[in-house]
Parts: sequence; C-alpha cells; structure tokens
Amino acid sequence: MSVTAPAGFEASGIARGLKSTGATDLALVVNRGPSSAAAAVFTSNRCKANPVLWSEQVILDGVVSAVILNSGGANCYTGAFGFQTTHATAEAVAETLGVSAGDVIVCSTGLIGVGDQTFRDKIVGGVPAVVESLSSDGGLDAALAIMTTDTKPKQAVASGSGWSIGGMAKGAGMLAPGLATMLVVITTDADLPSAALDAALRAATRVTFDRVDSDGCMSTNDTVTLMASGASKITPDVTEFTAALTALCLELSLQLQSDAEGASHDITIEVINAASESDAVTVARAVSRSNLFKAAIFGNDPNWGRVLAAVGTTDAEFDPYNIDVTINGIMICKAGEPFEDRELIDLTPRAAHVLIDLHIGSESAAIYTNDLTHDYVHENSAYAS
Amino acid sequence: MSVTAPAGFEASGIARGLKSTGATDLALVVNRGPSSAAAAVFTSNRCKANPVLWSEQVILDGVVSAVILNSGGANCYTGAFGFQTTHATAEAVAETLGVSAGDVIVCSTGLIGVGDQTFRDKIVGGVPAVVESLSSDGGLDAALAIMTTDTKPKQAVASGSGWSIGGMAKGAGMLAPGLATMLVVITTDADLPSAALDAALRAATRVTFDRVDSDGCMSTNDTVTLMASGASKITPDVTEFTAALTALCLELSLQLQSDAEGASHDITIEVINAASESDAVTVARAVSRSNLFKAAIFGNDPNWGRVLAAVGTTDAEFDPYNIDVTINGIMICKAGEPFEDRELIDLTPRAAHVLIDLHIGSESAAIYTNDLTHDYVHENSAYAS
Repeated sequence: MSVTAPAGFEASGIARGLKSTGATDLALVVNRGPSSAAAAVFTSNRCKANPVLWSEQVILDGVVSAVILNSGGANCYTGAFGFQTTHATAEAVAETLGVSAGDVIVCSTGLIGVGDQTFRDKIVGGVPAVVESLSSDGGLDAALAIMTTDTKPKQAVASGSGWSIGGMAKGAGMLAPGLATMLVVITTDADLPSAALDAALRAATRVTFDRVDSDGCMSTNDTVTLMASGASKITPDVTEFTAALTALCLELSLQLQSDAEGASHDITIEVINAASESDAVTVARAVSRSNLFKAAIFGNDPNWGRVLAAVGTTDAEFDPYNIDVTINGIMICKAGEPFEDRELIDLTPRAAHVLIDLHIGSESAAIYTNDLTHDYVHENSAYAS
Repeated sequence: MSVTAPAGFEASGIARGLKSTGATDLALVVNRGPSSAAAAVFTSNRCKANPVLWSEQVILDGVVSAVILNSGGANCYTGAFGFQTTHATAEAVAETLGVSAGDVIVCSTGLIGVGDQTFRDKIVGGVPAVVESLSSDGGLDAALAIMTTDTKPKQAVASGSGWSIGGMAKGAGMLAPGLATMLVVITTDADLPSAALDAALRAATRVTFDRVDSDGCMSTNDTVTLMASGASKITPDVTEFTAALTALCLELSLQLQSDAEGASHDITIEVINAASESDAVTVARAVSRSNLFKAAIFGNDPNWGRVLAAVGTTDAEFDPYNIDVTINGIMICKAGEPFEDRELIDLTPRAAHVLIDLHIGSESAAIYTNDLTHDYVHENSAYAS
C-alpha cells in the first residue's frame, strides 16, 4: 500500500519503455485532498538535475497536487531541452488532472546525461495512461515503477490516532544524500499546514536519510516529498506526528541500506560520547567512507586500525589515545591499544555494528553504511553498458 | 642505486622474519656526512603511529644521521610499549653507529596494532646485522626491504651540476597522504642547511606526494625524510635544487600510483581554469574519491555524469552549467550537456586522463588516482588474514 495507505491518495505505475527490461518505469502519486499542503527536501549537490531545479520552485508555496516519477533516465545535464522536458511533463500531468502545473513535482532517476526527444516522448506521452491507471491501492505499482538497480520495492507505513503516514523510496546506488535521499514520496491523511509539514520533514530526514551513506556518492536527483491530504480531518500533535514520520523515514532508510548495490553487510557506525552531535556525525561518516575499512568488513575482518586511521582524518574533538572501538559487541581496541581477542568477533551476519567511544563528551550519532564488495564494483563498472 | 646514488650515503636491507614470506623487512639508510642537515614531513592524520611521534621530535633540530625502516608492522596503536620499541630501536642504531639516538628517524609500515615483544625483538635484535650490511651500493636492498603489498621497489634519481638526489618509496595502499606519503627516504650530496632543505621538501611534496590519492585513505605512518651529506661540497641554487627535488618526488609519486593495490588504471584528474589552486585540488580530489566514477573507469566506461556529480559536492567556485569534461582527449560534456560521442573514448590503456574545465578562473591542479577494481576489494578484504 505505502503511499496509498493514508486516505485521500491514489497512485499508479506503468511501463513506457524507459527501462530496457520492459518493467514499469513511470509512476504517479496524486493527492485528492481536501488539503494539498506539502513539504519537500532536495539534494544539496550543487549539480542538480532538471527535475530538482523545477521542483524546488514548485514547493515554494507549500502546495503539491501530484508527484510524477520516472526511472530509466535522470534528466540531469541534458541542457535546456531537458528542463523543457520536465516542464512539459508537469504541464501534461496538470492538464490531465485539472490542477496547476506549478503544483506538480517531477522526479527522475537513472543515468545522468539521458534525456533526449525519445525520453521526453515516452514520459509526456505516457501521462494519459498513468493518470488512467490511478487507483486507491496503487501504492505498490508506483513503488515498483521507480526502482532502478533496487532488487525490491521499498514501502513503509506508520499511524497515529485516526491518521496514518505511508511512504515509498528507491535507492541502490549514488547513495549518500546531502539533504534527502534518492526518490522518496511520503503521504499522510493528517491535516497539517505546509509549515508544520516542512519542520517535521526536515527534523525526520536530518536523522534518517541524511545518515545513510552507502557509497559516499551524493546524487544529483535526491528528492523527498511529503504530501498531506487532510482526509482524516485530524490535526495531530506535531511532536507525535514528527516521531511517527521519523520512524517511517528510518524504516525506509534501513530498507535503502539493506538493498544497496552489491552490499553484503549493513553496517551501523555509532559514535558515542562525542563533544557534539556534529562531531559524532563527522567521525561516523569518515569511517563509513573508508574503502579500506569497508573492504575489510566484506572480508569479515574486524580491522580496527582502519577505523582509527579514518577517525584521525577528521577535525572532531578527541584524544587519539583515548578511543575505544567495539565491533559486534567485542571491544577490540581500548584507549588506543589492542584489547579483546579479534577471534571473538563474528562478522558473518549481514548486520554489523561498529561502536566508537570518543570519551570526550556526551553526544552521539549513527551512520548507516555498507561494505565494499566485488558485486559493488561489478555492478558499477557495468552499469552504463 | 636510489638513496645511495648521491655521495656520502650507505644503505642496507635484511630479513628479520617480520614478513611471513621471509623477504627482507628491515632497512637502514645512513648519512656519512660531512653534513647531517635534514628535513622531514609527516602524515597529517591525527592518529599518528609511534614512529611518527618519535620522528617528529628527531627532526626539530634539522639533524638526521640515519633512518631505520621496517615493514611487517606499523607500530601504531600499540600503546606505551610500542613507543618504547621505537625509542629502543633508535637507541640501538645510535649506539652501533656512534651517533645520537635523537638523530635517528624511525619508520614502520604494515598492519596497525602490530607491535608486541616479538616485533620489538626482531627489529632491535636486527640492528647489528643491518648496520653490518651497510654498503655504498645498498640502495636497492633498502628499497626492497620496505615493500609491503608493493609489487616492485620504487627508486628515482635526479642530478644537477656536480650534485645528485636519490630517493626510494613504498606505497600500495592507504594511499592518500595528507602531508607526506607512506615511507620515503631521499638523499642528496648537495650542501644545504636544514632550513633550505625543509623549504624545498615542503614545496616539492605539496605538488607531488600530496596530490596522490589512490584510495582516499590517509595513513597513520606517512613519513618523507630528506638527508643532505654535503659530500659534493657544492651548494646548489635553491630554485634549481627544488625543481630537481620536485621532479624526483613526482617520479616516485607516479611509481606509487602505478603500483597501487589492485589498480588497473592510473588516472590523472586535471582541473583547469579554477578560481584558485585550492579549488582545483578540491574538485580533483572529490572526483578521485568517487567510488562510482572509479568503478566506471575500471569498466572502461567514460561516465562523465559521475564526474559532475562529484564536482557538485564541493564548495569550489563554478557554474554547474558551464563545466566541460574531457576524457582521454574527447570532450564528452560541454557546458553541462552531452557533446562528443562517448564511443570515441578509448579507456583500454592503463593511463587515463580526465580534464575538467571550470571556466571561472586561471588556476589548475592535478590529482593522481586509480580505479576501483575487484582486485582492490580482494586484496583489502584479505589483507589481515
């Protein structure tokens, strides 16, 4: 169900030949109201795709009627023609639905540089059919249509007293969002104004999608949209709503992590007793971006030296000789010296946990990453061919 | 010859069982004078190995009589015992040579966390033999003994009017130096004071070893030592000496790049027309650290979208829609749009060149990196086993 779990939403997914496999590749999520309040966050990559440039304008008034999403091409670095494609897509959706083009968010994913006339024709020409296919239980169809190298659709639901939230996501590669991650659409039948939605979405993404760092590579197309239909006629407590939204975003984040391209381990890097939350994030992210550490985990090798070598590249506050490193529950390094026996660490499960205690403060944070595998190299060396 | 090419130096390399293969693993380079002026630069990693902590003190007075180097263990995060091992090593060398321990630089390379009593005994107990083996043509022996996963020794020589420079290096992995790189010893028979040597060494390493970024991982043990014997009795022009030293450091840097763990491409990322040299380095380094870009090059895929996605993560000055990307001579992206045909690009040679024109200024810089390969993952997932 995902995005169609909350009342007031319809969704669909159809095949338009954008994917060479013939799988579905064009998705639509429509808010039938009564409210059309919305919020969205985008990649902080300065090289933004055309759909991001368009959608950043759409969200300015806090109103969104629909989100149209395609896989099979990112429409990034496709020039003025590519921007016109995005614009034409929004116009076609608006005309067919009887809404304003300025209230239609457009999302694209796939290869950068793909967005020619054929690409445009497949998307714009598919709008009547994707609207025709809209259904109040079309959430799965939409989640399937936005997949690229994902092996499974990503969906989640959460609920409060009389209201609910649903979400879908696609991830797989280029998965180190700067503000949002890849393509995510979240719906709710709660009745909240766009300012409240925006605050809740930023609070939720800051500690969920923003903490996913699968491969250190930030996308040009990341977009997370949250639409509220108000169909439940209930205005929840903002704190309660934000907590539910955060839980849903975390669930989707962990689904992204567990389906990351080629990965064989889902690694949580947790930093505790840091001087600031920002320091904790910096240290955890540095470790998550160490190819040597990630390759070691692939080989089930608890190589704590590579953890500390990565910590040492940061400007976080710490004493290099008062850091403990615990891997899957075994404190392998204490105060800068080998401690428990490395043979005690079992890295064969997919889930791996690295705990870094900086002993300098009381703040903490976690980054969700993956290992560096033969399959990651294979998938990303053959991606364009 | 390398470090024994200049007059006034002796070197040696012997096997002490630190490497499980039985290959040589303990090296010594001695300056017989008459001068003992020297300079050294070290890793900027804040988690420094014991030999770095020791050698940073040694270099303070600008005098170095000898450098002793071991492979088979980094002596990093080995506690107070590890520092005492470094100290005992320097004392043993000093006593045997009849010099001051405070003039002996110690370098170690290998796994972090390795440095127990056996490790100490093998090194300290080997000092008499490594001194006994000293020879005025022992440069190759020393270069061989410092290899870890290197497949070949790295040596270079340069010369001026009546004076010469020789150098050796080891690299292979954890190869993204912050100030120096891995272990390098450079010798010269020029007669220059330590202040001049220091200025020349910093100028040379800034644009050579500092621009090698094979795998984005900064070592805890990087050390580059430059010793001058003055045996030629010639004091060269400092500009001329710095140019020769820079050429030698570049030659060693490219040897490091071409023997990086598992690599199948040597990639030069050149950024031109940047607003500042610092911006050019930042942009080139961001591209050199994109796993997606590096995996694409492994697959002979000129994936320029991944180049721009990496550029977009930086804070350098640029207009995202006025960047050209040229790969192996073919301008595949011009002003943010596809330009020449990707089929024209031949990425089968080992040497690859990526030229990024920012069109915003007149500064430039290059970073020397490698691709991300199955062999890199394999070698680094099995390293400790």
